[in-house]
Amino acid sequence: MKLLRYGPAGQERPGLLDGEGLIRDLSSVVPDISGKTLSRAGIEALRRLDTAALPLVADPVRIGPCVAGVGNFIAVGLNYADHARESGLPIPAEPVLFNKAPSSISGPNDPIVVPPGSSKLDWEVEIAMVIGEAAYDLPEADAPDVIAGYCVCHDVSERAFQNERGGQWTKGKSSPGFGPLGPYLVTADAIAEPQDLTLWLDVNGVRMQSGSTATMIFGLHFLVSYISRFMRLEPGDVITTGTPPGVGMGRHPPRYLKAGDRVELGITGLGTQRQQVLAHG
Amino acid sequence: MKLLRYGPAGQERPGLLDGEGLIRDLSSVVPDISGKTLSRAGIEALRRLDTAALPLVADPVRIGPCVAGVGNFIAVGLNYADHARESGLPIPAEPVLFNKAPSSISGPNDPIVVPPGSSKLDWEVEIAMVIGEAAYDLPEADAPDVIAGYCVCHDVSERAFQNERGGQWTKGKSSPGFGPLGPYLVTADAIAEPQDLTLWLDVNGVRMQSGSTATMIFGLHFLVSYISRFMRLEPGDVITTGTPPGVGMGRHPPRYLKAGDRVELGITGLGTQRQQVLAHG
Repeated sequence: MKLLRYGPAGQERPGLLDGEGLIRDLSSVVPDISGKTLSRAGIEALRRLDTAALPLVADPVRIGPCVAGVGNFIAVGLNYADHARESGLPIPAEPVLFNKAPSSISGPNDPIVVPPGSSKLDWEVEIAMVIGEAAYDLPEADAPDVIAGYCVCHDVSERAFQNERGGQWTKGKSSPGFGPLGPYLVTADAIAEPQDLTLWLDVNGVRMQSGSTATMIFGLHFLVSYISRFMRLEPGDVITTGTPPGVGMGRHPPRYLKAGDRVELGITGLGTQRQQVLAHG
Repeated sequence: MKLLRYGPAGQERPGLLDGEGLIRDLSSVVPDISGKTLSRAGIEALRRLDTAALPLVADPVRIGPCVAGVGNFIAVGLNYADHARESGLPIPAEPVLFNKAPSSISGPNDPIVVPPGSSKLDWEVEIAMVIGEAAYDLPEADAPDVIAGYCVCHDVSERAFQNERGGQWTKGKSSPGFGPLGPYLVTADAIAEPQDLTLWLDVNGVRMQSGSTATMIFGLHFLVSYISRFMRLEPGDVITTGTPPGVGMGRHPPRYLKAGDRVELGITGLGTQRQQVLAHG
């Protein structure tokens, strides 16, 4: 099942993508696609719906981030060995965790506005997990019970903010528009093998990143269990799980995004995003 | 004005502390004390209430965290020169930012449960700001317009999780119960000089921390402006602003919290917190 949110920013309505690729409205069924909707019982109730009886949504429509009310937007750093190498950093012995501001979350095709003072705007295609049930100190074997689904996340990054302004990474990961999520959340039951998906990202039509979730250092289920030892995960939390090689910072010379660039990215079965980079103001 | 939330965890109701120190119920006026309540207009509306006409709440009652629905729980590290020294770290040239999980937030007198695997549980008394209006790239002079008020925050920390598990600090700052907030939020108009408040913390009746917001490296208004360059602040966000000297990690030998310890902490005009440390499970 592919769940999504559509409509103007801040006024999105819940929907789903039916078997023919048409958007069906879910407003009469659930208030939004959020932590409450995404419990096991909530997803099961949606699965029992007669999709063909739901109202069709007329195209074209803006697609919003595929989950609302994200309480914690957690990110894993350096989770592909090749990307750690291109960043000049050792392969971590344990997952590196940092946070993106929930206010960075945007729709999959919303523009990326260059933040004031930015000089090193970079891209990162990632697979994100959306949490459906609260979890604390959870065994890895139970992780599937709390993962509602998966989506594409663009972990937009400002490398000067991240690495040259002192301290922790969150500064370079949190500007408005730095967290496109979607186009849709694919429920976990619909992804046969999440550790065998292809990720790719193009800038102006040129392939920059290409990888597979098969080469993650720390797998998806392990990550949920690991993170749950340090914090209680809540329904609606998002965990984005690191990027494969090919970011702008790792190129020789480095290649950063500037106004006018077009970014496209996608993951097998999870859809694609397309963003235009805009100047600030 | 002193705003608070009372009642069982997860079912708190909004209230205020009147001039005689009695709790008055606000349930008929606002749904909760949260970002929506704390806009300038929202606070102004509360200020016009006839407090004496509000229902009295019978003691004893549990006090909850003083703000609900926190979207981003932002923390500033090493913001008192003496604390940076005791941590063996240089005085930062720019504020160090990290995140606490919103799920760490608890009531001011709720127990602190030692997390599984914890060996270095530590304390940090801090003054926190609660944001009342959205803010992005905000000049320092406008910071007072977006600060709804102030409260005591106990930035409970696990030093092994923070410093010995790879990467960023969030791992040691996010366990359930690591973010007691309150007992109440004091609206900004009621704090004449927020940069001249005394902070203190006792363990088992022995004074461990004592400091003043006068010795912050980066002041409160500057911090709001600085953080807003890297992320959009939202109503209900909490910024906790660093701790003065005297944490357990900085003592010789280090002194960490264990089950049975009692912690008390407070800030001039912002009230006190009292927590019992409990074993896990």
